Amino acid sequence: MRGIILSLLLVVAGASHYCQSAVAEERLSDYIRPLVGTHGEGNTYPGPSAPFGMLQLSPDTERDLWETASGYEYSDTSIMGFSLTHLSGTGIPDLGDFLFMPQIGEPKLTAGAKDDPDAGYRSRYSHDQESAAAGYYQVKLLDSGINVELTAGERAGMMRFTFPASEQASIMTDLQHFLRGNRFKLIWSHVRVEDPATVTGYHLINGWGKERYLYFAARYSRPFDSHRIMSDGNEVRYDSYKNYRFRSRNEAAGTNLQFLAEYKTHADEVITVKVAVSAVSAANALKNLDAGAPGWDFDAMREATRKAWDEELSRIQIEGDAAEKETFYTALYHCFLAPNLYADVTGEYRGLDSNIHQADGFQNYAVFSLWDTYRATHPLFALIQAERDGDMIESMLAHFDQSVDHLLPMWSLQGNETWCMIGYHAVPVIVDGYLKGVRRFDAERAYEAVKTTAMNPDYDGVATYDKLGWVPCDQENESVSKTLEYAYDDYCIAQMAKALGKDDDYAYFMRRANSYKNLFDPSVGLMRGKDAEGDWRTPFDAHEYVHLGDFTEGTSWQYTWYVPQDVPGLIALMGGNEAFCEKLDSLFSFGENDSEGLDDIQGRIGEYWHGNEPSHHIIYLYCYAGQPWKAQETLRRILRTQYGNQPHSLTGNDDCGQMSAWYLFTALGFYPVCPGSDEYIIGSPAVSEATVRLSNGKELTITAENQSDENVYVQSVRVNGKPWNSVHLPHKEIANGGTIEFTMGPTPNKAWGVAKKNAS
Amino acid sequence: MRGIILSLLLVVAGASHYCQSAVAEERLSDYIRPLVGTHGEGNTYPGPSAPFGMLQLSPDTERDLWETASGYEYSDTSIMGFSLTHLSGTGIPDLGDFLFMPQIGEPKLTAGAKDDPDAGYRSRYSHDQESAAAGYYQVKLLDSGINVELTAGERAGMMRFTFPASEQASIMTDLQHFLRGNRFKLIWSHVRVEDPATVTGYHLINGWGKERYLYFAARYSRPFDSHRIMSDGNEVRYDSYKNYRFRSRNEAAGTNLQFLAEYKTHADEVITVKVAVSAVSAANALKNLDAGAPGWDFDAMREATRKAWDEELSRIQIEGDAAEKETFYTALYHCFLAPNLYADVTGEYRGLDSNIHQADGFQNYAVFSLWDTYRATHPLFALIQAERDGDMIESMLAHFDQSVDHLLPMWSLQGNETWCMIGYHAVPVIVDGYLKGVRRFDAERAYEAVKTTAMNPDYDGVATYDKLGWVPCDQENESVSKTLEYAYDDYCIAQMAKALGKDDDYAYFMRRANSYKNLFDPSVGLMRGKDAEGDWRTPFDAHEYVHLGDFTEGTSWQYTWYVPQDVPGLIALMGGNEAFCEKLDSLFSFGENDSEGLDDIQGRIGEYWHGNEPSHHIIYLYCYAGQPWKAQETLRRILRTQYGNQPHSLTGNDDCGQMSAWYLFTALGFYPVCPGSDEYIIGSPAVSEATVRLSNGKELTITAENQSDENVYVQSVRVNGKPWNSVHLPHKEIANGGTIEFTMGPTPNKAWGVAKKNAS
Repeated sequence: MRGIILSLLLVVAGASHYCQSAVAEERLSDYIRPLVGTHGEGNTYPGPSAPFGMLQLSPDTERDLWETASGYEYSDTSIMGFSLTHLSGTGIPDLGDFLFMPQIGEPKLTAGAKDDPDAGYRSRYSHDQESAAAGYYQVKLLDSGINVELTAGERAGMMRFTFPASEQASIMTDLQHFLRGNRFKLIWSHVRVEDPATVTGYHLINGWGKERYLYFAARYSRPFDSHRIMSDGNEVRYDSYKNYRFRSRNEAAGTNLQFLAEYKTHADEVITVKVAVSAVSAANALKNLDAGAPGWDFDAMREATRKAWDEELSRIQIEGDAAEKETFYTALYHCFLAPNLYADVTGEYRGLDSNIHQADGFQNYAVFSLWDTYRATHPLFALIQAERDGDMIESMLAHFDQSVDHLLPMWSLQGNETWCMIGYHAVPVIVDGYLKGVRRFDAERAYEAVKTTAMNPDYDGVATYDKLGWVPCDQENESVSKTLEYAYDDYCIAQMAKALGKDDDYAYFMRRANSYKNLFDPSVGLMRGKDAEGDWRTPFDAHEYVHLGDFTEGTSWQYTWYVPQDVPGLIALMGGNEAFCEKLDSLFSFGENDSEGLDDIQGRIGEYWHGNEPSHHIIYLYCYAGQPWKAQETLRRILRTQYGNQPHSLTGNDDCGQMSAWYLFTALGFYPVCPGSDEYIIGSPAVSEATVRLSNGKELTITAENQSDENVYVQSVRVNGKPWNSVHLPHKEIANGGTIEFTMGPTPNKAWGVAKKNAS
Repeated sequence: MRGIILSLLLVVAGASHYCQSAVAEERLSDYIRPLVGTHGEGNTYPGPSAPFGMLQLSPDTERDLWETASGYEYSDTSIMGFSLTHLSGTGIPDLGDFLFMPQIGEPKLTAGAKDDPDAGYRSRYSHDQESAAAGYYQVKLLDSGINVELTAGERAGMMRFTFPASEQASIMTDLQHFLRGNRFKLIWSHVRVEDPATVTGYHLINGWGKERYLYFAARYSRPFDSHRIMSDGNEVRYDSYKNYRFRSRNEAAGTNLQFLAEYKTHADEVITVKVAVSAVSAANALKNLDAGAPGWDFDAMREATRKAWDEELSRIQIEGDAAEKETFYTALYHCFLAPNLYADVTGEYRGLDSNIHQADGFQNYAVFSLWDTYRATHPLFALIQAERDGDMIESMLAHFDQSVDHLLPMWSLQGNETWCMIGYHAVPVIVDGYLKGVRRFDAERAYEAVKTTAMNPDYDGVATYDKLGWVPCDQENESVSKTLEYAYDDYCIAQMAKALGKDDDYAYFMRRANSYKNLFDPSVGLMRGKDAEGDWRTPFDAHEYVHLGDFTEGTSWQYTWYVPQDVPGLIALMGGNEAFCEKLDSLFSFGENDSEGLDDIQGRIGEYWHGNEPSHHIIYLYCYAGQPWKAQETLRRILRTQYGNQPHSLTGNDDCGQMSAWYLFTALGFYPVCPGSDEYIIGSPAVSEATVRLSNGKELTITAENQSDENVYVQSVRVNGKPWNSVHLPHKEIANGGTIEFTMGPTPNKAWGVAKKNAS
């Protein structure tokens, strides 16, 4: 009976929701399109998550393909089930912990294949019977007729299953499921039936991180009619005559475990499952669950999360049509999915040293895709999410304290360091945050961590770089990219040293920041590998894109532009503004690069590859060289062609929000080309009006008169009422709010923006 | 230099120790012979442990043989190394966690074989250059010339290695080492170099317990000259040109890890390693280490542990010659090795539910070999170690609280239930303790646990037993043994119910306690399997010893005597005292039982097998049937022939002290045939005088006039000055101390001890 009533309420609530949003006041959360980026390279997931939430319930269509890193590919036609955690936009799979799948009939224990879903618990589904919104995902499983709804709060989630009448309905939890990309291994798992309506368990994953523990807890809205634990396909139970020793039906450990909650259901019976995770213990997962979902009201949790999204999105209010708002707010949504809360309601979390720590005085976050997010995501946080950015920096400093190598995080994943990508880009996050007023952390402690990281004698050729002035290509892979990125990071350290009055350190790191000059080969006009003897890499192919070459996911033609800390210096090396701009022009006009392994970088315009981060700052370089109008046109073209409100709209991995943060800054008309410096570079706003609520509560209002898809060229700018004729916009000009007034037009105003500094 | 000085001190200290003990006052710890039981079936270990200590450093000669369950077999001629934890006297291997082995030359990473120790890190050794004492073990590794000394405190231990001069000396820690008996699996391990003189790590073992986590910490008296982590034989390090991503030299996870601390040593250089373990975390292992071994004084730790043993052993003071004292105090030592402290200095421990718990108000213990130790070990604790026994009962109640099946421990091992053996013998431990005044735990809570365990609907045929009155042999293996042991356990519950005024429960469990009668087949005069229809097992072989038969590690001839709760009832079933004693006589005169799998039960006299527990109470049954003199002679024969002060002296697995506790009670002249009742049965004292300091501080003095190896027959007894002519000795007679005065003689006094109760 309860099931029927709940189910009726659901229909009413669902219907009223959609009516409401059409007639009532605008809710920014309604512009969120979670399916954006799920088709192709975006690698986002469609399921619900609270802002920066601890868990991300979402359907998985794939587990073994490297390229379906979020578990869901829009073009797949069957769903394996619904797991509790997901990475947003990464290029490497992981998480996808603990798959829940409702079934009818004798439960299947393996997923089956995409081309034969009937062989396993997979079910066909249709996008026509699927919906995704802020804090909500729904899909009808066509093979069983079960309707599935998911919602998620900060530390707990709910799954609402509406069953047909069945003598044999079940909800399976597959503990060995995670997004393994066919390379990673489940080491161990454990499941425990705490009582006839509660299950806990954990698994230990040797995946992207070498050793990741995750526990879960699940409470069911009605006690199981019966339950089974399956291990390697066999029921775990004591057979009183066959077994030598007693065996509990209520717990098991192993590497291939499924739990089956079994029911007889009547038509439209609703069974709700509350879930939570913890990296610490099953007990903490239960605490997270009970604190995060004390009741059984699915719709209330959904509404609470939707409200949380309304509030988070309200940090930027824009004018625009529905499609523009959907694109913009979905980008903001994607920026606010990661890093993820990684601490239990008790404050405990599993640290990098595998010990359980208490986060005292801060919220602990995990999943730092720093090689991506230092560029625009964290600068966005510094601008409008400073409190969380402070927590994130505290989390990174805790990571440093727990690091046996005394290193800040590189690409950290739930108590693990993956060592993914290069550089030490926690540095620009910390320095940029510090210089822009992000507080909470102790500056001297942070500086110590930043400097110690940059001085590590073992890490990735840093010691040789320090000694020679470059990472030698005969001793270290990706040597040019490493040199260039170290030099930028070192520039950041120098800025913090200066701010803290450490003059010697400032000089030392500014010397290192100039190291980029050592790899610029004037004979080819490009950055080029150099060996320990000082000889250039020979033969040299400026378009070579190769694994373990001198460049990281790119070519010399792309990395040559990577001097954000000293663009004038780079311009000088290239022979001045004209030569620089001509070279930039040619980047966009090269033909197709047919290197192997390039399939997963899309958004390619010549050799400008917007689908990956090394290109993200490049268009803005026109602004430094007296031709900002070229940037304006190109930026607006990228916004139009490589973003949108459709599943296929993202041309590259969203990378925990970096692709989206690029969109947001660029659409607002400025971009942090060099985080750690005090300036943004003005581009071309794609919104006609925006109000940005800064972290300190002050408002920055951006207006763009005559803004349209044709009027992409900046005619003039006023900042805080002052005429502004420079592309350089110091953070301090807007730090306390204010106004930026653009006037746009259909043709370049070549006189605007060529000044080195604002004249007035 | 420090090394040399330490080494000189060692020689002096070592010499003075032995001189001292010869001339100074008697120290009971000097009678401890840790090697007793290491040759053959005893399965004890020779290394140091504090009383009931958390770790047991000891040499391992074997890892893969099931029968070398403690890791050390005296007849082996090479040592693999020294691991941190060991089980005392069990029949199944496990523990042996984390092997440390000092080496000279290029370190070997695998042990090599016994017949080819040079193939690995094994070293030859000689018993001539080996010594073992309370809290101390020493051996010279003949292949390397390294002298090894071990000591252990309550939660930390020390290893002192004296090296020859070497350009390449090392101390290896093999993380994949544990006592696997060729059946168990290491699931995962992790090692971490915390600083250049500190290492931590853990491993996860799927062994006797399905999921056992143990962490360790080690601090070295001088920083490594260099260090290496080896994984699958390869050094873990970042090769800057070959590796795609950075790899730390300082930590690794995997299934085959070794850590190498590397040194150049001068002649006689001493390097000391402090070690500790934790089931909770590496951080806690370090806390245990630093709290348990704050300094570097090996000899001080050894002396502290020796003193702790002096104090523990002083609970019983006996008269006797050196050999007698060595046998007696080594037995007492073995009784006080287990259960083991299983909580960190913080009070935290990993519970049966895998969660981390805080032991509030009690010390948590693990390793409960209850099928063995309920018989005499825990009754001994109730008598002279009540405070610890109370802690142990609290630990068992915590286990119950954490049990998903709501069961008290059966055979629990460090946060695991092994389900080893049968019955629910936590019950007699709790009831016997409760009735004998062991306190700390709440009686109602304990009763609830006891009763709930006995009413479990799933466990080992208990539900059918409750319904039918026996465990049917067509539905459950070991059905006769289970029925008999359940009946005894139920008798115990009834006694506690009575004490708590639960009359209905008393009647209910007393009915179950009579279930033994249902399996006595008068046509054969023996206990016999019965199926669910009530038909006897046919064919029936009274001497059959078979795996998964009707009996547990025994035959009908042995289990027929298992009615400790109602010996008069059994006597009546057998036709009275004469027939009963004749049948008992025949037990000792049967020829060799040549059943398969019997090799590991020794101490066989006919079908009385003293090497295993089902026989332990049998001799005392003569006392109930009017022929106590037969018991007296036989008991003394067993004491003389199956115990002693030599490595081969134990004829059966010591089973966490049960074999030894049998010795102690029997040597003192009485034995708890039926724990949970209020009485002991008087046998024949083998000591001429003993003073037992009871748990309440009162003293019980036992004297045996004319006691000798010939004068084994009790002539008369006085208890607290009163003439005592019964074999029955109520606990309350001695609970507040007092005297038992035996007069012994060379021939039976058949008039003594035949009264049902003491007449006076």
